[in-house]
Amino acid sequence: MAAELRRDLVRDNWVVIATDRALKPNDFPINKGWESTRKTGQNFCPFCEGNESYTTDEITAFRDNNTLPNTPGWSVRTIPNKFSAFKLEGELELKYSGVYESCNGLGQHEVVVETPQHGVELHQLPAEQIKQVYLMLQQRYRYLAGDPRVKYIQIYKNRGLFAGASLEHSHSQILALPSVPRENKGLSKYYQQHGKCLLCTTLEAERESRQRLIYESKHFQLICPYASRFSYETWIIPRRHTEHFADINDEELNDLAAIIKIFILAMLDCLNDPSYNIVINTAPVNQGFAGGYHWYMEIIPRLIVANGVEFATGFYMNPVAPEIAATMLREKILEYLK
Amino acid sequence: MAAELRRDLVRDNWVVIATDRALKPNDFPINKGWESTRKTGQNFCPFCEGNESYTTDEITAFRDNNTLPNTPGWSVRTIPNKFSAFKLEGELELKYSGVYESCNGLGQHEVVVETPQHGVELHQLPAEQIKQVYLMLQQRYRYLAGDPRVKYIQIYKNRGLFAGASLEHSHSQILALPSVPRENKGLSKYYQQHGKCLLCTTLEAERESRQRLIYESKHFQLICPYASRFSYETWIIPRRHTEHFADINDEELNDLAAIIKIFILAMLDCLNDPSYNIVINTAPVNQGFAGGYHWYMEIIPRLIVANGVEFATGFYMNPVAPEIAATMLREKILEYLK
Repeated sequence: MAAELRRDLVRDNWVVIATDRALKPNDFPINKGWESTRKTGQNFCPFCEGNESYTTDEITAFRDNNTLPNTPGWSVRTIPNKFSAFKLEGELELKYSGVYESCNGLGQHEVVVETPQHGVELHQLPAEQIKQVYLMLQQRYRYLAGDPRVKYIQIYKNRGLFAGASLEHSHSQILALPSVPRENKGLSKYYQQHGKCLLCTTLEAERESRQRLIYESKHFQLICPYASRFSYETWIIPRRHTEHFADINDEELNDLAAIIKIFILAMLDCLNDPSYNIVINTAPVNQGFAGGYHWYMEIIPRLIVANGVEFATGFYMNPVAPEIAATMLREKILEYLK
Repeated sequence: MAAELRRDLVRDNWVVIATDRALKPNDFPINKGWESTRKTGQNFCPFCEGNESYTTDEITAFRDNNTLPNTPGWSVRTIPNKFSAFKLEGELELKYSGVYESCNGLGQHEVVVETPQHGVELHQLPAEQIKQVYLMLQQRYRYLAGDPRVKYIQIYKNRGLFAGASLEHSHSQILALPSVPRENKGLSKYYQQHGKCLLCTTLEAERESRQRLIYESKHFQLICPYASRFSYETWIIPRRHTEHFADINDEELNDLAAIIKIFILAMLDCLNDPSYNIVINTAPVNQGFAGGYHWYMEIIPRLIVANGVEFATGFYMNPVAPEIAATMLREKILEYLK
């Protein structure tokens, strides 16, 4: 797919534009009746074991000895995103044409298929398999960070129609970008102004007040953040000050996998099985050191559709106080831990 | 509803939080099965003529002589948003508590009911009635701009579940805010850097290239913007450099009403009746003059659900080139104009 990044001067941001194709109205998941085919398993799925030849060529996989790439026998499999606007080729080139500014889509966009089985969701996998998923993401993160043209790596997951998923089979995505996005600059700005890590300060404050604390494990704290953009938004923050997601160690990974499993189980039960996103915020790569970064994971249940005022102003409106959300989620987790 | 604005230090933004209530999972429109009740008209609607006593007290209405507020006999009716987080009382007060920062919801949030009839949508109204809707919005804009505590006024409309609407009866909203949102600062920044209006420059460039031009009327130009955040996003830009939406004159209002009617008709037909938002971007009020503002209207068909990467990075991914979108919309409008 040919694509470019175009500068949005009104919003002071960038937009990724596919320049050579136009989805027909009926190609959009909203119009395709995605929900109605959900879980029937009647539709052909390229992510299922046995259908490897229908995807783009495998980048890497955790697979049984003596099995070949693009064949069955894998547990977690990474492939290029077929509809990607990004290519890790050449250099970043800014182009100007009158009032307009653009650049090439320098980067890489990969899909990590979390299980060979259709209809089994992330939280339904054994904790050991969840760990494998995050090990794979860590491995891909390290690989992509090794390319000096890459400046930021975004890991994310879309689950369900209202979270923007277009395929049901459980998967995550990893996107390597040639610049640091606007939304990732707050932690560094806070550090410059206050000389300390905002998230370390937050961990301490939330531990003391307990108002928005959902759960604490050996290595992680789960909170509903003070300024939650979304109802029941939850952050999983490593207690150790760690800048990059890839810095996580084996013991922390075990803990993280167990927490993800129990938290998503509890959250889906508490909120009536909503669509959700997971996003991992982490430090930029391949640029001068900037203090204050501390990686963390955001889990965003998608209960409300963003509306006009949010797109116009950038302000989010959240009808559920995080203090109330944290109490509900905490109680539900305790039920599951019994 | 008790509410406050909380500073989101990570995203460098503000979030509006309801502090005293928590929507239950089944209270969210997504879970209420809004689509299934759509257009059956079987549900009770507080915006319908005859049900005036079920809404908050009328602020103003265009109504027949000799009819009383909060009774039938109106054509366009303005009421406070019942679930508003904003109150135009007192002064803006910033509060600090450790790492956290908040302020009161100083402002006003109103709903403009566009027609007494249920099931008749904006584009189905006669152009004269559409004009009345925008006259009402202009009148409310002027009134709210008269309060020196108000710094920005956001007019918007949500139509359909995927646009974040919670009620089906056709309505717009107007929100007076105590500060200028982040997303509104690009035009002014451009002016400071280049000494000219970005939108006037854009009008000229698009008129010349015609690549993204959908339609031109006497007073307005319709384009798909170069860096469209959304597929088929359309801007209606006044050709006269006008900073505030309220500066529009009577002749321009007539033209605008006719254009809105024909454009929405064509767009809904072209794209399979999608949900959509309308937002009006305009200059801040009650603060020192800043050059470069030029009001315009954005119409956003909601064909794609924003996903994790968009919330995490702030980058939008648009799979339809605006050049292709403009061609499709232009052809459809020409059909309707035949």
